[in-house]
This record gives sequence, C-alpha cells and structure tokens, in this order.
Amino acid sequence: MRAAVLGVSGYGGMGLMRLLLRHPSITTVIPVSSSQAGEPVRTIDPGLDESGAARLQATDGRAVDAEAAAKHKPDVVFSSLPHLASARALEPFYEGSVVIDLSADFRLDDAATFEQVYGEAPARPDLLTEAVYGLSEWNAAAIAEADLIANPGCYPTCTLLPLLPLLSEELIRGPLIVNALSGISGAGRAAKRNMLFCERSENMQAYSPGMTHRHVAEIVRGMELFSSRQEIFFTPHLVPIKQGMFVTTVVEPASGVDGEAVRRSLERAYSDKPCVRFPGPRIPETRHVRNSNVCALGYHIEDGRLALFSVLDNLYKGAAGQAVQNMNLRFGLGESTGLPLDGEF
Amino acid sequence: MRAAVLGVSGYGGMGLMRLLLRHPSITTVIPVSSSQAGEPVRTIDPGLDESGAARLQATDGRAVDAEAAAKHKPDVVFSSLPHLASARALEPFYEGSVVIDLSADFRLDDAATFEQVYGEAPARPDLLTEAVYGLSEWNAAAIAEADLIANPGCYPTCTLLPLLPLLSEELIRGPLIVNALSGISGAGRAAKRNMLFCERSENMQAYSPGMTHRHVAEIVRGMELFSSRQEIFFTPHLVPIKQGMFVTTVVEPASGVDGEAVRRSLERAYSDKPCVRFPGPRIPETRHVRNSNVCALGYHIEDGRLALFSVLDNLYKGAAGQAVQNMNLRFGLGESTGLPLDGEF
Amino acid sequence: MRAAVLGVSGYGGMGLMRLLLRHPSITTVIPVSSSQAGEPVRTIDPGLDESGAARLQATDGRAVDAEAAAKHKPDVVFSSLPHLASARALEPFYEGSVVIDLSADFRLDDAATFEQVYGEAPARPDLLTEAVYGLSEWNAAAIAEADLIANPGCYPTCTLLPLLPLLSEELIRGPLIVNALSGISGAGRAAKRNMLFCERSENMQAYSPGMTHRHVAEIVRGMELFSSRQEIFFTPHLVPIKQGMFVTTVVEPASGVDGEAVRRSLERAYSDKPCVRFPGPRIPETRHVRNSNVCALGYHIEDGRLALFSVLDNLYKGAAGQAVQNMNLRFGLGESTGLPLDGEF
Amino acid sequence: MRAAVLGVSGYGGMGLMRLLLRHPSITTVIPVSSSQAGEPVRTIDPGLDESGAARLQATDGRAVDAEAAAKHKPDVVFSSLPHLASARALEPFYEGSVVIDLSADFRLDDAATFEQVYGEAPARPDLLTEAVYGLSEWNAAAIAEADLIANPGCYPTCTLLPLLPLLSEELIRGPLIVNALSGISGAGRAAKRNMLFCERSENMQAYSPGMTHRHVAEIVRGMELFSSRQEIFFTPHLVPIKQGMFVTTVVEPASGVDGEAVRRSLERAYSDKPCVRFPGPRIPETRHVRNSNVCALGYHIEDGRLALFSVLDNLYKGAAGQAVQNMNLRFGLGESTGLPLDGEF
Repeated sequence: MRAAVLGVSGYGGMGLMRLLLRHPSITTVIPVSSSQAGEPVRTIDPGLDESGAARLQATDGRAVDAEAAAKHKPDVVFSSLPHLASARALEPFYEGSVVIDLSADFRLDDAATFEQVYGEAPARPDLLTEAVYGLSEWNAAAIAEADLIANPGCYPTCTLLPLLPLLSEELIRGPLIVNALSGISGAGRAAKRNMLFCERSENMQAYSPGMTHRHVAEIVRGMELFSSRQEIFFTPHLVPIKQGMFVTTVVEPASGVDGEAVRRSLERAYSDKPCVRFPGPRIPETRHVRNSNVCALGYHIEDGRLALFSVLDNLYKGAAGQAVQNMNLRFGLGESTGLPLDGEF
Repeated sequence: MRAAVLGVSGYGGMGLMRLLLRHPSITTVIPVSSSQAGEPVRTIDPGLDESGAARLQATDGRAVDAEAAAKHKPDVVFSSLPHLASARALEPFYEGSVVIDLSADFRLDDAATFEQVYGEAPARPDLLTEAVYGLSEWNAAAIAEADLIANPGCYPTCTLLPLLPLLSEELIRGPLIVNALSGISGAGRAAKRNMLFCERSENMQAYSPGMTHRHVAEIVRGMELFSSRQEIFFTPHLVPIKQGMFVTTVVEPASGVDGEAVRRSLERAYSDKPCVRFPGPRIPETRHVRNSNVCALGYHIEDGRLALFSVLDNLYKGAAGQAVQNMNLRFGLGESTGLPLDGEF
Repeated sequence: MRAAVLGVSGYGGMGLMRLLLRHPSITTVIPVSSSQAGEPVRTIDPGLDESGAARLQATDGRAVDAEAAAKHKPDVVFSSLPHLASARALEPFYEGSVVIDLSADFRLDDAATFEQVYGEAPARPDLLTEAVYGLSEWNAAAIAEADLIANPGCYPTCTLLPLLPLLSEELIRGPLIVNALSGISGAGRAAKRNMLFCERSENMQAYSPGMTHRHVAEIVRGMELFSSRQEIFFTPHLVPIKQGMFVTTVVEPASGVDGEAVRRSLERAYSDKPCVRFPGPRIPETRHVRNSNVCALGYHIEDGRLALFSVLDNLYKGAAGQAVQNMNLRFGLGESTGLPLDGEF
Repeated sequence: MRAAVLGVSGYGGMGLMRLLLRHPSITTVIPVSSSQAGEPVRTIDPGLDESGAARLQATDGRAVDAEAAAKHKPDVVFSSLPHLASARALEPFYEGSVVIDLSADFRLDDAATFEQVYGEAPARPDLLTEAVYGLSEWNAAAIAEADLIANPGCYPTCTLLPLLPLLSEELIRGPLIVNALSGISGAGRAAKRNMLFCERSENMQAYSPGMTHRHVAEIVRGMELFSSRQEIFFTPHLVPIKQGMFVTTVVEPASGVDGEAVRRSLERAYSDKPCVRFPGPRIPETRHVRNSNVCALGYHIEDGRLALFSVLDNLYKGAAGQAVQNMNLRFGLGESTGLPLDGEF
C-alpha cells in the first residue's frame, strides 16, 4: 500500500512518518512538503532512522510537492496541514485516494457553523457532509466505507471517549464541566513567541474558556452524532509537557447511578477495543500513554458527582495514531496494526 | 524583632528564611531543625547568600533544636513542619511568642473534623478554637490580635480568594466545580518515589478528587467563616512545574449577574490589597506570580456559567509569603512589607 | 525463547519488559521482583499495555521471586538490580541460562580494581574473567559465545563509541577531556531527596569529576580491551531531562589528521552497524535518539583540536536496549531485532 | 536618578525593569520599545507588579520610542537590543547619559575582529576604544569613570571569573577546554522554531563549538585585558532550563600548584566581592544562583588536571544584574545595591 503524508515538517506529519515507515501493510511512503520540497526527509526530521529508507525510495528519500506526490497514485493520503490550507492541498487526491485529513476542515458538517468557528468559509463546503467523522471506536462501520475521513481533534477525542458510553445509556446528564490540560505540542510547530521554551516552562494557564475554543463545536457535534447534545463548559489549559492530554469532566449521574453502573458501561463500551484502556476506578497518568495510541480512562464518584478522567498522547491517539487506526479500519486491517500500545514509564 | 523558623530544611522553611533574612523589621533569625541541628544554615540551603549572615549570629549561623531556640525568646515563631509534628514542636513557644503555624494543625476549629480528615486526633485540641485562620485579606482584624495563627494551605488560599467576594455578595451559587493544578513543591521535600524528577516530568495526573483531598475541609471552613457554605467538588492535579498553582472554578452566576457585576465585586474586594492582583477579565499565568506573594485573579463569563481563574506561587502566597504577611498584620507593619510582588517573566 | 527480568520495578527493568514483550523471538517473559513479588506487572508499570499479556502467562502476569523464576528455566536472564545485589540474585541462573547483567558486577575483570571503585569486594570474583564485556559493536564475536555478559554502563557506551575507531587507528591521542551530560533516569528509581522533581528542574550541576566517577574505570577498561589506554579526565553533569545523554570529548588529533580522516574512520567503523548513526560532521541532539537503541555521533575539528559528540538514550542504548542487542548477538538473531531505531521529534 | 531601558519586551529588558523599579537610587524609569511604543509596560510584562508604578509616571506607565525617551534626559541608559540595532538606537544618548550596552556592539575594541565575528562592520567603530568592558569585579576603576560601558556576555562572564585570578598568578596554563551549559533564555525572546518548548524539552545538544561561537572572541579579549591570552576550545550546549549557566573548564595547573594554591587564589580575588561566591572546593548548582546576581565558583583538582566550575543566572549576573552592578560602580553606590543575592532552593 502506498501512503502520502502532507505536512511532514510539522509534529503531526512527523508522527505519521514514524508510524507509516514501520507499518506492516505499507510499502511506499511519499513525504509531501510545499515549503521543504527537495529536502531529504531525514534532514527534516533527524530522529527518523535510515532503516526506513526502503519505503522512501519512490521519492529518493526527499519531500516532494503535492503535484509530484499525486503522480505516485497513493492509496491513502494523510494531511496534517493547518485548516483551509489542508482542504486545498488535498485537491489532487480527493479522486483516486482515500483521504484522511487531520485538520479541522471536514470535522463539522455544516458550513455556517464552520464559518462561525473558524472565521472563514470552508474551502470545500460540498464535501462536508460526505466526510466521515473518524472517532475510531464509535464510527468504525462508516469509516470502513469512507473515502474522506475527518480525523478528530485531540480535545474532542479525549473528551468524548469517556462521555459517550454514559451519555448513550443515559447514565449522566449535563451540564458537562470539562477541564482539559494539554501538552504544548498541541499548538503545532509554527514559531510563535508564546510557545517558546522560556514562555512555557515553569508556567501554566487556561485559555479560550467556555465556548470560545474551536474544539467545543466539534465535541458538540460528536455528542450529536453518537448520542445526544448536552450543555458543556470547556476550559483548556496549557502545561509544560511536550506530549500528553489530561481531561477531567465533572457531571451529575442520573438518579440511582452508582460507580458500578459507570464501570459496567465503560467496560461494555471498550473491553474489546485495543486502543482504549479502562482498568476501573483509578486515575490515569499521561506518561502511561505517551508515545502510544491508547486513550486510558478512569473515574471517581461521590455524593452525586461523577468525575471522569481520560488521558492520551495528543500526537498519537489525538492525531497521527488515530489517523493510522482509521486507515486500518478503512482497509480492513486489525484496528491497532502497526500502532504502539505501550506508554512510557 | 527576633524570628524563629522550625523546619528550615523543607521548602517552606527555606522560603521563610529567604524572606526573614531580608525583612526590614527583623534583626535576628533563629533557624530550627531537629534533624540537622548543628549544621550551618547555608549548608542546608546553599542558595542563601552570606550577606544575610548578620541576622544569623545568635546561633552562629547554625540550625538549633527547638529547646535551644526557645532560649532566644523569639517574638515570632514560624513552623513549617508536617501536621501533628508541628503542634508538638511548637510547645516551647505557645507562651511568650506569636506563633504562625504553616501546617494543618490549627486550620480546622473542630477536633472531630480534624480526626476525620487527618486520621488522627489533633495534637492540641484545646487550641483549635483559639487559633485564628490566617487568610490575610479576609481576617486582618483577628490576625492583628492573634497569638496563634493558622496559616492557610495553598489550595484553600487560591480557591477562596476569587470566590469569597462573589459568595458574600450572593452573586454566585454552588455547586462549585473546582479544578486545581499544582506545582510539585506542594508535595514537600520528603524523598518519595512518586515525586522523583523522572516520575513527574512529561507527566500529569489528577489525585484525591471530590471530598478526598484534605484541603477540601479547609475550603469549606473558609466559606463558612467569611461567607456561606456551598457544595463543592474539588479535583487537584499534579503538573511538572516546581512552583505555581492554577485554580479554575466553574460556577453559576445568580440571576441577572453579568461580567460587569463580577468585575466590580472583585475590584471592591481587592483594589486596595497589595497581595491580590485583579486586572479584569483576563486569564493569569502562574509565571507572573512566581517567587512573589501575589495571588492574581481573572474570570470569563458566558451563557450562564462563570469561570474564575486564580494563580499563586504555592511556596509564597500559598505558604511562606502569606505567613510573613500575617506577621506584618500581627505586628502592625505594612501588609506587604518585605514581600516580593514582582513575578517572573 | 523464554526470558526472565530481575528488577522489573526499576527503570532498566521497565525498559526490558517493553522490549521483550514485543520482541519477535520471545514467547515467555518472567518478571522478577523480590520486593513486589505477587504484584501484577501491569500494576508495577501501568504504562505496559495488556496486549503483551500472552507472554506473561507463565507467571499469571505477576512478578515472582528469583527462585520461582528459576523453575521456568529461562533461556536468557537479564538483571537490572544494583551492583552486588545483582550478582547475588543471579545465583540460580549462572548454570543453565545465558545471563546478561546490567549492573556493574561484571564490568571490571579485576577484583582489586572493583573493590577500589565500589568500596566492597565483588560478589563473585571467580566470574569476573569469564564475563564478556557487552559493548555490542566492538565485542560481537565474544558476545556470541558468552554465557555471562556484562552490559556496559551508559557513560562508557556513549564515550567509547566515538573514541574507539579513532584510537584504534591512532588518529588521536590523549589526554581525553570528556564532558558528559546525563538525564536524571541514570540515577535510578530509588527515592532520593536530591533526585526529586523540585531539586532537579531548573537546575544543573557537575558531580564526581576526574577519576571519582565509577564509570571511569570502566571506560579505561574499554580502551584497554579494544584499543589502548589513554589519560582521561571525565566530568559528568546532571541536567533536567528524563532520558538522554550527551558526551562531548575534546582531544588532540595526531599530526596530519584532518576532518576527512575522522569521517572516514567513523564511517568504516559504523556504516554497517544498525545501532550507531553517523551522518557526518554534524552535532546530534538527544531527542533524535530518545526511546531508541541508537547512539548518534558527530564531530567538529579546528586548529588542532577535535571535538567528538555522541548521544544516546541512557535507558535504551545505554542500558535495556543494548542488553537486548547483546541477546540478539548471543542467539544469532539480527543485531537490531525488536529494537526501536527511530527517536523522537 | 532617572534610568531608561531600551528593549523592554525582551528578557534582558524585563530583567532590567524588575531591578530598576526596586533599586533604592532610582526615581524614574523610562521604558523604551520601538515595536511596542504606547503599550503599558505592565501589559508587555504582566509579571511586573503595579507597586512599581510611581517610577513609571514620567511616561504614564507606557513604553515610548527612543526619541521620546531622550527628552526625559535619563542619567543612565541601558540597552538590551540586538547588536547593531543597539548601537544605532543609542544614538540620542551617547551625549548626556551614561550608556550601558548589553549587546555585543562595544565588547570588542577592534573593528576588524568585530566584522569577522559578526559578519558586519560595527555601527559605531569610533566608539569601540572609548567603551569600557564591564566585567565588574575586574574593571571597577575604569567602570567608575566610564560614559559607555560594554556589559559582558553571559558565557564570557561565567568563563572568565574563575579563570582570571589563576591566570593572573600564573597558576594555570592553556589550553583551556571549556564546556558550557546554557539555559534557553540566553537565546532571547525572538520567535524561532528551534527555541520552541517542544524542540527544547527532553533534549540537549552542543552548538557552535571551537572558535565558532561569537563569545569566544570576547573571552579572548577578556583574558588579554586582565591577564594573558591562552589557547581555548569552547563548546556551548543548550539544556532545557530557562535561566542558568554552568561552565566546566579543564586546565593544567602549573608545576607545583595544588588545590590549596587554587583555593587561596580564588579567595584572594573574591572574598570581598559581594557578587561572587566561593565556598571552596565544592561543585555549585545553578538553582542556587537563579534569580540572583551571584556567580558561584568551585573546583576539583586531581592528577595534574584542574576542573573549574562556575554558575550564574544568564539573565542576572550574565546580563541585567551585572548591568545594574556596573551602574552602581559608575555612580559610586555600593556594588550590590538593589541586587538580589539569594538564589532559589
């Protein structure tokens, strides 16, 4: 299988390269970069070992532009470009390749909502309803038939996974008070002053609280798609780690719902899912899923309040990892094929 | 004025030494350590400069035990020992010195609650009601007359300061959903495996959620003392920074309360308070109060939800700094005398 | 192949578990811990995914003590216990298993030197000369026949790899001025105050300079084994990262030796070695080998001085990874089988 | 005394603001920024407390451009702009104010060397020989009479302070093998991709080794000015801390020189210097001087090699702090007036 990756000089693209160069079903990887076309991909990302070089022979180990990439007729194309730029750069691939887009361009199915959230009209409004929302554990059947997959954002993935089973079974009700902590890599690799090491180390802060963060509309859509819409108040925070996300969601359990009911619901939903780990009412740590495609869950219930905890690596299960998981689902491979499942220690 | 510090080998004691060795009203500092009696204080804490040595002459620059310290008849005694150990080590000083205790030993005024929270009976139940709760901005009159001051915990200080004005004016109502992020120094300096650099860096997690954290009872007492008790759900998290605390509290505003009402309330409460900074509806960052005795506040209001943000340095306004602020209030000095107010950049 | 790991609750043991549970030639892993026998290994290390559980069936997923482990007759036994404890805990395995010891117990072949360096006599002096020094790239033939392999330390591996080719070809001469920077995990997982997060973050320092660090004797032995002994001055430093080592060695090139000669020598030595990366006169970064079994090299030459740069992940190529590499060599597998070669980005 | 600061939105300028707003001899501070003129200085740096506002009244608390600043006729002007930009922006102040320049514009006294090192001709070659090199402990007499002071770089300050006494007394000889570790703030506050949090955390690397780093020429000049030129090989490294510098210099002691001789020499040089701390043959840690204007020294001697250790905070003794120290010397104030001397713990 031939795979192309748009945006290999960003963190998402680097994560995709790592996974695809080791994936057992991939024979050829075509690295795409408009700004660094011609550069050897191992110069762009010196952490890639030369042992993956065989799969890069099609482009002589170098990044190419999108047009050149299209000539290789990739079976699957990943884009981790910024929104709007992504939908445009994917033009040569909508026909003929399965497209997995990691940007926000196809996550919302309504052009008006997109424009409201992102301040500009979507680049390809005609494709919004065609795109399949790629929350792997909840949309596998649709993903398996999709030619355009909108890979979810890190915050929505981490927030929705513990909520959806409980919402679907009406074990909880809103409002959902969501506090999310994100590692800095979620902000991407663009050179911004407020993402410098010296601005982030020994520092933490909330940002874009309430409905102001762009991911809220996506979380709402995820609830609507797979369950029911609830009132939500979402506060993301930046903390000085590179890769990791910790979401704490406080909700009210429905009348008569106890910890055991919560446990059973989460187990039912995920006991056969290789990329969701739920060891019971414990609190997960982000290091235990770092560099893995696993979302780990936990909970605490007390006096009419339920706290749900969920962690993932924003670059793996929150981006590149789930994208490969969706490729696996689309091409009939085992869901976790080629994906790391052990975290750090 | 002569000051003694119990527990100079811990982070709280080190912070106290720094402040007292530069404070304009202190002439003598008596460093106390049971485990390191006899050691030069500058060996215990090599970050202390020798320029403060004149104030350490009484003990020849060395730590002494509590008994030896009592002979110096200090005007004020600070203890940053662990709870129970603290109340006991302070025995020689209850008579004759103003005592400012940074442990939890005198923060709750009820022995039964103390025992329930801490798993043991208080060491000096007879003093619980005599002790004055040292939340400087809210209890200045009582502090000014107190001989035993219970210095608040870092979580209660950071949580109560934005809440109390709004609760007092009935601008908000519970439940209060509190998410708190703490730097690692809050866990103290004892050698624990789970506080090793390698267990904390690139890692974050919640712990002791709901009513399980010991500081919740103290927050509840603070609400009762200065306003009214509300339902609260408190989730603390550990993030990999050394000094800093970020608290996000989501509440429901009372009917008709808008952002302007919130702003006016916080301004009324704190515009003349040197150690609380409220620049309006902005989101503070912990670095801006690091190494300072300032608690900075902000808020965001939207669609019937109010998020309150508060930050402080858990070792300064959350411990040693507020202790010195309380000493200032007790001895009729300017509230912020000798206290750093600039944060880092 | 059945493998046992002594010391699974330490960082080295955790690294070994990760590698062995995914290694294509291993069918059974026996986790050994004296202090946590009976505990599920996934409780000891929650970052291990359940997908590796099949290989842990022999002990029902639990750690066992060494005696119980011996009954499973492992083909290969790894120990990452502290020195002296390691040689003793390995007693049941010297007969019947290939032993790969990650401690210092068998790195020096001379009991007197061991005693001088470690302050105690070696536990098994009789085995010192039998043990084979496991610097994979330089001792492969001996390793392939060894039943007792002394896995090198992280400092010696990182220091020797760039030096040995140049020393062997007499392109450089001493004194070797070696400055090494180590991540904190090199200090192990024991609860020590000076390894707490708050003691290490925003801090750096040298320690044990000159001949005082224990690894110097091992570096000297490595030079003697594979080339010639040179005068060396070694200064290790602790810097606040979790995994990583950066060694800068400044030497004098022999008369007439230029950068091209250095380049050719390093290429000759390592161009066919999968676990050493030498892209030419560039300066490597530790992130590019983090979580991989790669040592990356670089150099800079100028005005009669040559600086050699080498980086590795102290837990992989500096410990668990090289141990598995040695297992591969011993059992005739491809040298890098089952070893990650991509670093982070 | 009125002081102006050029470049208040950079780390150096922020450090200067902090010190000058608390300095006992300063009544007025004029913040200067070409890019943010008109902005309140507390918006530019929210870590500055409002308690310093009185000194900012001249400009209504706002940054102004250089021309407007000149009208306030400051007694002393600091510039922490980049080189070339700095010398040009200082034009309105060379006549009439004492100028303390923190850039490299006046550190070298020779235009040809400047051009070779910086790739461009100096902006004011005519002033090069007039400028006084502001290494406070070694040039106090000249500084006291200077109207243009070239504030030293962080690497030269940290490297020269332990070397100069020993070189002057001919106790050591070259070559000097210098390994320096720097916190990231040394790279300034410009938005560069390779200074992002995610590029620096869990990462370390050398850069610009040998004679390629710009600070080497300045170190050489410092040796020539105050002692004698020696061969030097300098390798700086970037490590993930915000503020701090650790320099390890390995040299050969002159015949017959022992540790005692080294100790006496360093004590003679610095026992009466408030901003250099030398507690004997110990190894300092950077945290112990963080946020202070202290350079701490230590050493280790063994078998014909001497390792010198020196630490400072690159933003204080390595930049803004030493600049204020030079102002103190120039205006006849106590050398450490208004300067923090305690480090962190």
